[in-house]
Amino acid sequence: MMTAQSPVDLTTYPPIDPPERILLGPGPSMADPRVLRAMSAPLVGHLDPYFIEIMERTQHLLRYVFQTRNPLTFSISGTGTAAMEAAIANMVEPRDPVLVCVAGYFGQRIAEMAERYGGDVRTITVPWGEVFAPQMVASALKEHHARVVAIVQAETSTGVYQPIKEIADVVHMSTGILIVDAVTSLGGMPVDVDANGIDVCYSGSQKCLGCPPGASPITFSPRAEQKLRSRQGRQAVIRNWYLDVTGLEKYWMVRPPQYHHTAPITANYALYEGLRLVAEEGLENRWARHHRNAEKLWKGLADLDLTLHVPEEHRLTTLTTVRIPDVVDDMAIRQRLLSEYNIEISGGLGELKGKVWRIGLMGYSSREENIALLLAALEKLLS
Amino acid sequence: MMTAQSPVDLTTYPPIDPPERILLGPGPSMADPRVLRAMSAPLVGHLDPYFIEIMERTQHLLRYVFQTRNPLTFSISGTGTAAMEAAIANMVEPRDPVLVCVAGYFGQRIAEMAERYGGDVRTITVPWGEVFAPQMVASALKEHHARVVAIVQAETSTGVYQPIKEIADVVHMSTGILIVDAVTSLGGMPVDVDANGIDVCYSGSQKCLGCPPGASPITFSPRAEQKLRSRQGRQAVIRNWYLDVTGLEKYWMVRPPQYHHTAPITANYALYEGLRLVAEEGLENRWARHHRNAEKLWKGLADLDLTLHVPEEHRLTTLTTVRIPDVVDDMAIRQRLLSEYNIEISGGLGELKGKVWRIGLMGYSSREENIALLLAALEKLLS
Repeated sequence: MMTAQSPVDLTTYPPIDPPERILLGPGPSMADPRVLRAMSAPLVGHLDPYFIEIMERTQHLLRYVFQTRNPLTFSISGTGTAAMEAAIANMVEPRDPVLVCVAGYFGQRIAEMAERYGGDVRTITVPWGEVFAPQMVASALKEHHARVVAIVQAETSTGVYQPIKEIADVVHMSTGILIVDAVTSLGGMPVDVDANGIDVCYSGSQKCLGCPPGASPITFSPRAEQKLRSRQGRQAVIRNWYLDVTGLEKYWMVRPPQYHHTAPITANYALYEGLRLVAEEGLENRWARHHRNAEKLWKGLADLDLTLHVPEEHRLTTLTTVRIPDVVDDMAIRQRLLSEYNIEISGGLGELKGKVWRIGLMGYSSREENIALLLAALEKLLS
Repeated sequence: MMTAQSPVDLTTYPPIDPPERILLGPGPSMADPRVLRAMSAPLVGHLDPYFIEIMERTQHLLRYVFQTRNPLTFSISGTGTAAMEAAIANMVEPRDPVLVCVAGYFGQRIAEMAERYGGDVRTITVPWGEVFAPQMVASALKEHHARVVAIVQAETSTGVYQPIKEIADVVHMSTGILIVDAVTSLGGMPVDVDANGIDVCYSGSQKCLGCPPGASPITFSPRAEQKLRSRQGRQAVIRNWYLDVTGLEKYWMVRPPQYHHTAPITANYALYEGLRLVAEEGLENRWARHHRNAEKLWKGLADLDLTLHVPEEHRLTTLTTVRIPDVVDDMAIRQRLLSEYNIEISGGLGELKGKVWRIGLMGYSSREENIALLLAALEKLLS
């Protein structure tokens, strides 16, 4: 046994005591205080009858926020990117033709992941800030008969809300599976999995659901399940152990549950409480609140002579991209917002870096007082 | 927009209010109350200067508990199994000869994962409850010149503590990389990454570190880093996006950090506070506490005429496997422990199912009063 030592005096490290930020970036948003309290409840085991009850109720709540009857609906034990990877790893078999609609950073990420899982990936693109016409997807599917099509409904990098229903119809006519990223819409804007004909839909907990990141919703339609079960031969084994739905479903869907991995107990407590808050408020009221508050923000930004990047009819209400005026120093303004007002907003990502700010009004962060404060601060800093 | 509806009345779901369990199974163990309080602090963004400071301090603390100088030391945004997969995904290239020492359930899991990542996997086995002789590993390496060797130091399924130093020497003579699973040892028993010559070591937060599951420590030696950087051609791309260390290190190791995925902020708060508690107690005092309490448990179990599965010299102090007497109903006793005493212990896993109970004394759960209560309860239930 060696003598335990460290080159740093670790006993001087202070306890956790974060500044009270007003989180108006692209996520994480502020967690509802009720969620934080739920999270600090004592742990139970991942096979405890109490925890199993919470899992089952979480599944019911998730079906409600997704607006789906899909039995295979649960949470992934990781953040939103892990849920994205769960969708891809389980749906994309090596050599599967895959079509990814790329109109932002997260569309690119999906395409990159699909390649890692051996997909024969093609992309179609529109400029960052625009939407796909269903006809464009139809044309692409004629050339590349994709078994899997993926699109980001609510692009956190651009602030655009893509039309899903018409694209889903096109994908299904061509017998494909449609994967939809709802990380920045679920709980804040309509996702409507069944009505829109979405086959695999995933999200995160840290945006419009008002929880910390760590347990991420996902749902698979019967058609997606069928694709999963029809994987054969060497392709039958999912090339990812932690995110393998054929293993995860033995924990989530079978009683008594079989051990797969230790669930992140407190993250699941948090998700349950966050979903309960959605059910109490009511999905439609919640969508209306996000809409109402976004309109206030948009009006206020216009009053400051700032230009929004996305035309109103395609805008997310949960995340707004606003063009940074040429004369303004991106970083300096954001740093002053943080240091002088404790407000976090975010810069652009990818090709919009330096060109836009991203302002999120998601979940618990979508509140009138936050908008008033941000607008007052921007007015002062930009004058 | 469809009308939001649910077939279940979700508004009747109660808030989180778990029973106060005494968690003496193989994990999760009880979280230290200080950790739960740290976790309920308000969120900051994953690129916030405050969070970056917490990340850096966490890395220093992790180097201390791992007893390593490895720069590439951080946490994976998932539970222990995700950290296992991070080790395998980054070290095992397709067609790499891999040797896995299997002496329990988690050794099997490693072998299964290594196959998913395309490794040319061989296993050597000893009965569940025994240790590997270094000579056995040396012989196997003569036949199968493995680039990667993996072993579980502390098998949660058997209660055995494997010797690492001698095996590491054998692996390095054969120029391989040694991966060690320390999920049930880190913070409770010596792991000593540098002194033992471990190349990749990972753990979970929910056992001897006294945190909830959700952020899992991992460290890579310079030799492991070299293997990672020497991946070439199609093998250069890690077949897992979320766990790709070449992406993660741009967030953890580069300043300013580059966005990879949204860190599970509160799980990182928890890990930081759990590690601070380890530093305050001191690693060696902590090892001694786990040892002292395990001896009390062992003595008490012997007084109840129960037989321990593992000889004392190879026993974990963090997890004890005790044989279930033939006349005793495994499930009935565990259910009564839970319902009458609020105590969770666990049954056997894999080939020890129905044969042993697994009693964990890990982190905050390793306390004298828990042992006294468990022994009193067992005495009553077994009489």
